[in-house]
Amino acid sequence: MRDVAVIGIGINKWGELWEKSLREIFVEAALKAIEDAGVDHIDSMYVGNMSGGLFVGQEHIGALMADYLGVTPIPATRVESACASGGVAVRQAFIEIASGMSDIVLAGGVEKMLDVDTGEATLALATAADQEYEVYNGVTFPGLYAMIAHLHMQKYGTTSEQLAAVAVKNHRNGKLNPNAQFPFEVTVDQVLNSTMICDPLHLLDCSPITDGAAAVVLCPLEIASKFTGKQPVKITGVGQATDFLALHQRKDPSWLEAVEKAANTAYKMADKTPKDIDVCEVHDCFTIAEICVIEALGFAEKGKGGYMAASGRTAIDGEIPVNTSGGLKAKGHPVGATGTAQVIEIVEQLRGEAGDRQVKNARVGMTQNMGGSGASAVCHILEVV
Amino acid sequence: MRDVAVIGIGINKWGELWEKSLREIFVEAALKAIEDAGVDHIDSMYVGNMSGGLFVGQEHIGALMADYLGVTPIPATRVESACASGGVAVRQAFIEIASGMSDIVLAGGVEKMLDVDTGEATLALATAADQEYEVYNGVTFPGLYAMIAHLHMQKYGTTSEQLAAVAVKNHRNGKLNPNAQFPFEVTVDQVLNSTMICDPLHLLDCSPITDGAAAVVLCPLEIASKFTGKQPVKITGVGQATDFLALHQRKDPSWLEAVEKAANTAYKMADKTPKDIDVCEVHDCFTIAEICVIEALGFAEKGKGGYMAASGRTAIDGEIPVNTSGGLKAKGHPVGATGTAQVIEIVEQLRGEAGDRQVKNARVGMTQNMGGSGASAVCHILEVV
Repeated sequence: MRDVAVIGIGINKWGELWEKSLREIFVEAALKAIEDAGVDHIDSMYVGNMSGGLFVGQEHIGALMADYLGVTPIPATRVESACASGGVAVRQAFIEIASGMSDIVLAGGVEKMLDVDTGEATLALATAADQEYEVYNGVTFPGLYAMIAHLHMQKYGTTSEQLAAVAVKNHRNGKLNPNAQFPFEVTVDQVLNSTMICDPLHLLDCSPITDGAAAVVLCPLEIASKFTGKQPVKITGVGQATDFLALHQRKDPSWLEAVEKAANTAYKMADKTPKDIDVCEVHDCFTIAEICVIEALGFAEKGKGGYMAASGRTAIDGEIPVNTSGGLKAKGHPVGATGTAQVIEIVEQLRGEAGDRQVKNARVGMTQNMGGSGASAVCHILEVV
Repeated sequence: MRDVAVIGIGINKWGELWEKSLREIFVEAALKAIEDAGVDHIDSMYVGNMSGGLFVGQEHIGALMADYLGVTPIPATRVESACASGGVAVRQAFIEIASGMSDIVLAGGVEKMLDVDTGEATLALATAADQEYEVYNGVTFPGLYAMIAHLHMQKYGTTSEQLAAVAVKNHRNGKLNPNAQFPFEVTVDQVLNSTMICDPLHLLDCSPITDGAAAVVLCPLEIASKFTGKQPVKITGVGQATDFLALHQRKDPSWLEAVEKAANTAYKMADKTPKDIDVCEVHDCFTIAEICVIEALGFAEKGKGGYMAASGRTAIDGEIPVNTSGGLKAKGHPVGATGTAQVIEIVEQLRGEAGDRQVKNARVGMTQNMGGSGASAVCHILEVV
């Protein structure tokens, strides 16, 4: 397998992008990535998108984006793994280059979620859960993650204040991110006094509904220096895994087994342990998700994830900075784009281009992206070479 | 890149499968493929599906199928390229094995289209066309292919009888296929006297709406003989390409440029020409599609595709047998599964297991699968080794 590097990144300001269509949002990010990479063509592309069908009545999204990006007749494929679609797109591009089939591959993600009303969006997102056993019975994602939160609280004594601390940290970071949807700080009191969505999750425990896109350009490491004046970032570890789609089938719904498996695959491939990671982007679709994820990644002991944000250990200047971008919580969560955007934040950190969010001496970064209530997960480890 | 072989195939009887759910249909085909391959595990899987969201309210289809197949925690990804999704799934599995990332990979496709009414199904399928420029103005696929047919008739003198001859041939073949949705013969008169759907396309010029699944198991050629007692079939050529999504943007809408490009990539990789192909499965979503496709593949001169079926040259005993399975027309067209099922038909032909549909001395086969009105296309060349 050939070594693969990220040589270009592109993202737009996320939020309520009423004036732009799905294709415009994607093309904007893709062109930025191509310009950043300094390439004059791409050989193939992957687009992560969760539900163009339900959000904007458009499938066939790979070909559409190749068309509007002006790169036909190259192969273009949409991949879907619910909210992990953007991470899976990067994995497919990695594999295609590693195989020798293509040299320069664009991987991106896009979602336009605000063209439907909030109820419709909630139902579209619920198609990531088990339609026959979960959604049919009326539960949507705030309910599923609330059950995970209750279990975590009961088993380990995790508190609402600890959940809130995740939101506080991520908004503090997000304020420093010019592309974030909600770049402002919140306090623990504001989180605890925000509308209860599904006990124990308040409005400010939930990531928002977002329009946005992100794209990266990958190539074989050995030719990376031909294209970009910037620091190429090597992808040294890639892991993907699955779990039961429905929560009730899992032995312990508060433990994200697919995340653990995906991370272990990536650690093994990169020959790294959790202690080697300098900065990490994780999938905080709800505050409880970040807590469970950092346990599954090995940054906190089982049951101890709740202490991490509250004690400052996952802050930008903490022992393991988590979600320096603001995370899904403050940066926004256009579901198909999120996983690709995580890779972008890590590349910026490893290049030393993260501005006020910069983690000092970051040499090894990691991303963790997941679908549904954790039934699919994909992790990447990236390093300065 | 490592050489890759198909070692297992699985398909179910296609049709109106009211009593089975999306997951059941897929798992049935996948288990057959795993049993046929003789493997005791798989390392990774890809599922082609066009619109689980619109047809059955289910996305996150990779993880769902891994769950119900009982193979978690392996990586599982859904790929979508409209009606080419099942072909793209095979390509992704090919690349993953070629790269060295995985050894045994399952690629399949599934669609359950009959849980919604025909009008809803037509609109769900229309999401493969350009939502902003085509569908918004009221055109759906019968209309788009009718425009292609009119242009082909005007430019080359193609007749309704020639279109009908494609349906007659494919139903004649489909009658011999135990898994076909419509295993009966039709006559040219029956086609011409069937309900006019969109001039010049009659009901019997159109492929049906279908529930169905198909799956194949792939592994490195060098270890293929370890698993199966059957003839391994090597994938020697893979090509994928894109074109403008909307018909009006193409220089000549009667010429399928993405099909030509995908085929040329596959021919080059396999070191083959159209003359080397002994049997081919093509994407006859409408009779005119088969006519345009065999031109783009190089089996007929430009504009001469109409003569082929009518003259018997694409019959099972003709110079280039096309759609021995019955094609989309008679076998059925569960859109996400079609591309994988084409590979299955070619494997059966190359193994000599095609029964009454067997093409004599078939050594080199080809598949051509496309999305929308040809904006995406994927071709595979398979050979006995």
